[in-house]
Amino acid sequence: MTTGKDFRTETRPDDVAAVRDLAAATGYFSASEVAIAAELVEERLQRGPASGYEFLYADDSGRIAGRLDGYACYGLIPCTLSSYDLYWIAVHPDTQGAGLGRRLLEDCERRIRALGGTGVYAETSGKAQYVSTRKFYERCGYATGAVFADFYGPGDDKYVFVKKLG
Amino acid sequence: MTTGKDFRTETRPDDVAAVRDLAAATGYFSASEVAIAAELVEERLQRGPASGYEFLYADDSGRIAGRLDGYACYGLIPCTLSSYDLYWIAVHPDTQGAGLGRRLLEDCERRIRALGGTGVYAETSGKAQYVSTRKFYERCGYATGAVFADFYGPGDDKYVFVKKLG
Repeated sequence: MTTGKDFRTETRPDDVAAVRDLAAATGYFSASEVAIAAELVEERLQRGPASGYEFLYADDSGRIAGRLDGYACYGLIPCTLSSYDLYWIAVHPDTQGAGLGRRLLEDCERRIRALGGTGVYAETSGKAQYVSTRKFYERCGYATGAVFADFYGPGDDKYVFVKKLG
Repeated sequence: MTTGKDFRTETRPDDVAAVRDLAAATGYFSASEVAIAAELVEERLQRGPASGYEFLYADDSGRIAGRLDGYACYGLIPCTLSSYDLYWIAVHPDTQGAGLGRRLLEDCERRIRALGGTGVYAETSGKAQYVSTRKFYERCGYATGAVFADFYGPGDDKYVFVKKLG
């Protein structure tokens, strides 16, 4: 089991496929969302820190080469002083329920705080299938900052969760 | 005076500088925001419609070569079915108060509706200097969908305005 202490932060070329596989395996993301998740990894590889995307990777402890247990992606929101977006967080179905998501999120927050961040924003869907995602953010101390009706599509609202960092 | 009928929609190479000059001239945008405004024009030139950015340009009626009276930039929000972001709208100070902003916005909405769009989202600052911007959206039928405290910086909230298209 990956512990909070050893999340990998360097992006490697095989993470593009690993993130694509992981995002698809969760069943939570549409095809275009999976493609975007992988694109952010590519952009990090090409542009480095200038991409604005920081990653935490929970490796599969070497059980399956190139497979991830989970990952998170965050970054300073352009044109803000200290607001950060949690662009992605995902945990492999085989690993869910063991607290890895919370450890990834808390490590993101720790790193954001260290960078001078004052707020973290995370977006998710209001559809029934995402109730566990919304409860996850609430359990982790996030407040519902906004709900945009029918944002993603008819009957598919966008929730914006916010956590202020002290 | 540019009328609603003749907004130019094709992006030309000199629009990069023209949009940069216009955005800077308004005094409403930070240096990094002005840079991003110009980058979106560059991305449109490089990637065409695949950039996801559509533009309306109000030319300066030939009075000053390469100068714009105003412009707007909108596009389908990735991973949504029919939600559009009004990324930018700006009117030159010499032209403000004559209704050009409203004509640009209404033409964006007309084009978004024709593309099947069901909602338009526009973000702006909660600072006192943007009170006229916020009143502009309200006059044009937008509702305040969310306010994120201290989003841009301390004391600088983000307002998200929303208009549902019937």
